[in-house]
Parts: sequence; structure tokens; C-alpha cells
Amino acid sequence: MDWMSATEIAERVRTGSLTARAVVDHTLERIAAQNPRLNAFTLVTAERACQKATQVDQLVATGHDPGPLAGVPFAVKNLFDIQGEVTLAGSKINRDLPPALQDSTLVRRLSAAGAILVGALNMGEYAYDFTGENLHYGASRNPHDLSRMTGGSSGGSGSAVAGGLVPLALGSDTNGSIRVPSSLCGIFGLKPTYGRLSRGGSFPFCPSLDHVGPMARSAQDLALAYDALQGPDDRDAALVRRSVEPVGTLTTELDSNLRIAVLGGYFAQQGTDAARRALQRVADALGVKSTIEIPEVAAARAAAYVVTNAESSALHLPNLRTRPHDYDPDVRDRMLAGALLPATAYLQAQRVRAHFQKIVADVLTRHDILLAPATPMTAPSIGQKTMVLGGEEMLVRPHLGLYTQPFSFIGLPVVVVPVQLPDSLPIGVQVIAGPWQEARALQVARVLEDRGFVSPIPYF
Amino acid sequence: MDWMSATEIAERVRTGSLTARAVVDHTLERIAAQNPRLNAFTLVTAERACQKATQVDQLVATGHDPGPLAGVPFAVKNLFDIQGEVTLAGSKINRDLPPALQDSTLVRRLSAAGAILVGALNMGEYAYDFTGENLHYGASRNPHDLSRMTGGSSGGSGSAVAGGLVPLALGSDTNGSIRVPSSLCGIFGLKPTYGRLSRGGSFPFCPSLDHVGPMARSAQDLALAYDALQGPDDRDAALVRRSVEPVGTLTTELDSNLRIAVLGGYFAQQGTDAARRALQRVADALGVKSTIEIPEVAAARAAAYVVTNAESSALHLPNLRTRPHDYDPDVRDRMLAGALLPATAYLQAQRVRAHFQKIVADVLTRHDILLAPATPMTAPSIGQKTMVLGGEEMLVRPHLGLYTQPFSFIGLPVVVVPVQLPDSLPIGVQVIAGPWQEARALQVARVLEDRGFVSPIPYF
Repeated sequence: MDWMSATEIAERVRTGSLTARAVVDHTLERIAAQNPRLNAFTLVTAERACQKATQVDQLVATGHDPGPLAGVPFAVKNLFDIQGEVTLAGSKINRDLPPALQDSTLVRRLSAAGAILVGALNMGEYAYDFTGENLHYGASRNPHDLSRMTGGSSGGSGSAVAGGLVPLALGSDTNGSIRVPSSLCGIFGLKPTYGRLSRGGSFPFCPSLDHVGPMARSAQDLALAYDALQGPDDRDAALVRRSVEPVGTLTTELDSNLRIAVLGGYFAQQGTDAARRALQRVADALGVKSTIEIPEVAAARAAAYVVTNAESSALHLPNLRTRPHDYDPDVRDRMLAGALLPATAYLQAQRVRAHFQKIVADVLTRHDILLAPATPMTAPSIGQKTMVLGGEEMLVRPHLGLYTQPFSFIGLPVVVVPVQLPDSLPIGVQVIAGPWQEARALQVARVLEDRGFVSPIPYF
Repeated sequence: MDWMSATEIAERVRTGSLTARAVVDHTLERIAAQNPRLNAFTLVTAERACQKATQVDQLVATGHDPGPLAGVPFAVKNLFDIQGEVTLAGSKINRDLPPALQDSTLVRRLSAAGAILVGALNMGEYAYDFTGENLHYGASRNPHDLSRMTGGSSGGSGSAVAGGLVPLALGSDTNGSIRVPSSLCGIFGLKPTYGRLSRGGSFPFCPSLDHVGPMARSAQDLALAYDALQGPDDRDAALVRRSVEPVGTLTTELDSNLRIAVLGGYFAQQGTDAARRALQRVADALGVKSTIEIPEVAAARAAAYVVTNAESSALHLPNLRTRPHDYDPDVRDRMLAGALLPATAYLQAQRVRAHFQKIVADVLTRHDILLAPATPMTAPSIGQKTMVLGGEEMLVRPHLGLYTQPFSFIGLPVVVVPVQLPDSLPIGVQVIAGPWQEARALQVARVLEDRGFVSPIPYF
């Protein structure tokens, strides 16, 4: 049952050939057995899960609709509020907060669809992280090689899904925090359009850049979750009011009218051979010949840093002043730098953002889907501080998001598709669509899955 | 003809009882005669005006529709682009810019409606001003007392309209720059909802706060202009796409269902007796008994300062670095202070803004119209640096906007209505409505006009 998809579990629970209780019992056992090795979970909500399973099974037994995600176990990055639990956001400081009074909006949505919350997942402190390491709770571990990073900051989400502990997890992505662990752990991840899914009841990192979304082992599971996650919500001021646009069942046929291009230039530089080969494989599988360049990507990424730095510092200023030693020094020092940034630099960065958004909007009048590597390399070793990219030694922590930052900066939807190269750890490719075109990116991901780009099963 | 309304001019020109040419000739003569005393105009576009007048008259003569503002002379604050002219924005530095390639959107809209541009108007340097003084071009003068300030920064607009040089002018309002001169000069002014009228082709001051709008001597003239000014425009990214909502002809009847309240608390403090009496008169005329308080107004105003300071500095940083001595020291020193503001302070100010917006949105569920003084006092003397308000001596320049800043900060539409107290200079009252409810505020202004609150005619 470990590798069963959310889609299959829901189908079997809904038709009565599997009970939600059996799914939950198995899941809790597997978490108990394997989590000590993966360090993916920081909280297991066993009692809640069992109660919910009983409810779902009763609905099925009495002929009621248990929801499209009936019986599907899921877990959430520990920055999503879970009623009665303290929202850690990977920090030591948040332990002093009171327990959440209610579930975050997305937890509520998945629960209302019949899915079963089984716990909260490890993450980089306050999401300011691309490694999946955590000073207070230990590094989450990559199921494909336990000595390797999961990538971050949704590291526990990547580990739990890739390790077969749950078929579905929620993560957040400010600069790449869904896409980097999806890439390094070899799973599918969706960062939706900025303003599409509600962040209500999730702990913020950088309000003008924060996104939330699902991570899973198949494109259809992403779509299934995404459909349940959509909808209006007063708890997130940035949420754009749109009618729900259900993706439904994905097909394995590639729309021949789709104009797909590979991104060269910036996205062909600095990456390792693995990143280049993965991208090439995906392009070949889709029959894509055209390579284009987007100008000013490096400026966009630099500006994303400034915005992240300033907004996160603004949120943390009181704690930075009174208890700086309770932060991971790697996080704290970046936020302290952010606290010294002048407002004019922040505003200039926001202008670069608007400018880059226009540049890419123009590109998207000629192309429907853009392809780029998700990370410049496969998973580094836990504890590894530097890496060599393009002949240059650079810090691992800030640079794993080299290829993801430019797209979250302008809020485009991206699906990461896993690529398993021979004798290599997995690595992901970004399938990037225009604003609100999640369905299109998911559809291309499903085609790729059908053409062999599947989540590799680890042997840990 | 000096005090003829835009509405009457248009009606007469449209029906052929007055030619646009006669209107323009008279207007140019009056500007030539009176502007030396008022210093309202920095540019007179005589040739363009005569050509346009000929066009309008030809349309009338050939039975074509010359537009709803046919033959109405108007002038614009010199931050609106006029094709072929340098957009000064009240500065010395901008003299080095090339002439504008095209008219600003609002100049184009009024022209398309048959109105006739006769020139550009004096203003505070880069709009960072509440006095109407200008180091480079001299102070614009208040027609009710030539030794008094017009208020700023749309000082030339206030002076030209109050002085009977034009029935209609455009101004901009970031913290009160339409409303303060409307109050001190005794005219009507509309600051629309943020995002309602296009700023395309106008020189920016503070992008997240800048508004543009009309100033006139009657409520109906404001409505006439406003209807011509509405509409979509790609040149202003902040413009909210809405269908045009024409106000049309205002009535003199007060809707008895309208829930109107006087603002007390902050708005009853620090003002002079004149401000209090003016507000009371307006409340009495409308039969308003209820006085309410909005919390945290002072915090909102403080935050408006921070946002203004930071955004204006960001725009001017290159010139502040290379040619600081070409600025008015009063403007420069505030911008230099803004350049030193940390990004975290700016972001905190934007959070205060969102918070205050919620507070007032809640108030607006119980009230349709709020009334407050427009300025704490009548026009100070030109050159006057300090004033005593609430027993405290404070600087004139930043504090004339005491009562206007909180509403521009949250983007609400406001119409200023003039009040003529006995033995006093004029002073204005703000009629504040909910977002996109310009029509409602204009309608109340029309009722007040009918009940005696008219633009006083000066004897200068």
C-alpha cells in the first residue's frame, strides 16, 4: 500500500474495496517504522486521523459521498495551522506560541474532501532555506540516499512523499521551497499561480512571494488535490477571486497545438551535467526543438533576494531584536542583513519585478509552456556547505534555488516533473505555464509521466 | 464669462449660442491680465487652444457632436504630459527632460470630450508640498487674499479655478494635494478612488498613493469632467479595470436613506475654530446628528508619511545622488531622510495601511458618507513657516494635510466642498465615500451646493 496513489486510494475507499481505517492504520505503522530514518514528521496526529477514518468509513457504509479524496492520508509542512497544535514553522521560537485555534484553510479543504491528516512535517527554519536541514529538529533525509539533503524548505514534505509515508503533502514555495525538494526527492510538485490557493492559517515568510501547493508522486494526484484546494477565502488578502477551475482527469495525449520551448541562456549555465541531461530528456520526450532565452533573469533573481530579505526581516524584527540567539545563525544573519536594507532598494527590487513580469508576459504570447531545470544539481550531502557550479565555488544553501527563484518572483504556475537518469539521484524539470494555466502545466506533466518520467521508488 | 460653469459653457457651445473661439479668446485675455497677480500658470498653450476652438466650432457648424465638454477651457497641474512640452512637475531638474511625445491620458480624454487645454499650472516641487509655494517658479497666490497660500501641491490649479481663469483644472493628490488647495481656495475638488482614473503620462511622486482628479467651482462641473475622465488605460498599471460608471446630472435632493456621520476624535482635534465651525455647518445643512470616531487615524497618517518618504526617495535616488542642490532644500531633505529609511519600516507602514483599511471598511458597513474638515485652518500667509494648532507650534508645510492624509492612504474617494464663514477666508469640508462611490460623494456635494455651500467669488 506504500506506493499506492491518492487517486487509487480514494477510488477504492469510495467504492468500499478498502477502508479508510485500514489505510490510516497502515500509514501510522509505516510512519512509526520509517520516520526515525527519514526525520520527515515532527508531529503525528494519530488520534485525529483515526477519528476521521471512522467518519469516512461511516459515510461510505451509509451510502453518503465521502468526498473525492476519501481516505487519502496527507501531511503538511509544519507552517500550516492544525487545530490544537503549535505551528512551529521549523523554529524554536514558535514553540512559545499558543496552539492554533483552527485548521489552516487548505487543511480544512482537504479534510472536507475526505482526506485524512496524519501529521506535520519538518521544514527549514521559517522557510528561509533550500536544504531541508534544521538546527532544532534535525535534517529531513532524502529517501533515495539517507546521507543526502531533501532540499528545502519543504524538506519533510519531499521526504514523506518520496519515502512512501504519505501519497500527498502540502508545502510552501517562496523562492522554490516546493520545487527544490520535489526535484531532489524525485516527486511531482505544484507551485500554483501567486494568489491562486489560500495561505489562510499558514505561517508567513515573505507575503508578496509566498505560495502554497501540493506535492505528490503523480501528476493526477497533484490535480486531484489541487481541485480540492481551490476556492475563495477571506483569510488571505492576496488571494485573487476567481471561479474554481477544476482540472479533473488528465489525459496522456499531448495537445499538438501547444507551443513549448526550452529555456536556454541563464538556465543552461551554472547547472551540472545532470540538470542539462534531465532537461534534454524531457524536451526530447515532448519533441521540443525550440530553445529560447529570457533576458534579465539574473537581475530578477537578485531582486527576489532583496524582496525576500526585506519582507522576512520586517516580519521577524521584534524577535530579531529580543532573542536573536534562538534563530539558526544562517537564518538570523540573513534576516539581520535584511533589516539593514534601505526601503529604496526594496522598492527598486519591486520595480525590477514588474519589469521582468512584462518581459516574460511577452515571451508567453509566443509560448504556452517553458521548460527549465528545477535545480542545478541532484541532492548534495547533508552538511555540505559549498558546491562548484560553472567552475565557481558557491554556497549550497542560497544557490539551490538558482532556477526556481525567477518564476516564483513573477508568480507563474510551475509543475516539477521527476527525471531518473541512469546511475544518478533523481532531479526535476520545471514545466512552467502562463498565469492561471495550472491545468496546462499539469497536463504536460501527465504526458511526461506516461512517457516514463515517474517518481522513482527508493530503497532505504 | 469669468464665472461661467463648465456645464453652462458646454451647453451654450453645443447649442451654438456661444463659440468656443469666443470662450478661448476671453480666457487667454483673462489669463494674460490676471495671471501676473496669481502666478497660477507656468505655460499658456494659446496656439493649441485656438486651433482646438476652431475645430470645436467647425463641428458645431457642420452638425457634428463636439462632445460633452465642448469649448470648456481647462488647465493642468504641470505634472501632466502635454505633447511637445517639457513636464516640469514643479522642478528645475525636469527642465532637462525632452518634451513629452504625447498628451497624458487625462488631457487626451478631456480633449476628446471637446474641452480646450489652455495651459499648465504651477505646483509644489515634485508634488511634495501642501503650501503651493515653489522655490523655482514662485508661490501660486490665493485669489481670496494674494498674500495667502493657495495650499498645495496643486496650488496653481486651486488658484486658476478660484480666480476665474478656467472653470476646470486637473490636479494630483497623494496625501491631500487636490483637497488642501480646494479647501484654501474655496472650490470643489474630487480625489477619486485609488485606481479609478488613469495616471498615464503624469509625473509620479509616490506610486502606491498617487491619485489624479478634477477641481472646479461646482459639483456638477466635477461630475461632468469625471465622466469624461473615466475609462481603461494600459498606461497606468494601478488602474483597476471597471466599466465606466457615469454620474450624469446630479440632483438637489438628499437621499433620506443615506447614513451620514461626522468624524470626531482625531478630526475634532488640532483644528482651528474655523475648521470646526465649517464642519458643523455642513453637518447641520444635511441634518446629520451622529458623530463617530475612527481609531488609529494618527498611526495611519504616520504610516502615510513613511510610505511617501520611501517611495519618493526611490524615484529620485539618482538625482539625489548627483544633483542634490537643484532641489528645493525642503523637498530634498525629506527625500534624503526617505533614502535612509529601512525597508522594514516601509513594510510595517504598508501593514498599518492594510490594517487601517480594514478598520475603515468596517465603519463603512454602517455609514455611507463620512464628513471631516479638509484642512485644520484657512490659508496661511505665503512664507509662513509655523502655525499653532491645539496649542502646539508646528510646521505649516507638512501639517496642512493633517486631515487629508488618512483617506488618500486608504484610497477612498473624497469630494471637498467649500464653506464660506463670515469674516473668514474659505475652508473646505471633506465628503468621504466608500470605494468606487464617487457618485455618492458628488451627489452630497451637489445637495450642499444647493443649500448654500458655493465657491465664493474673490475680489482680487
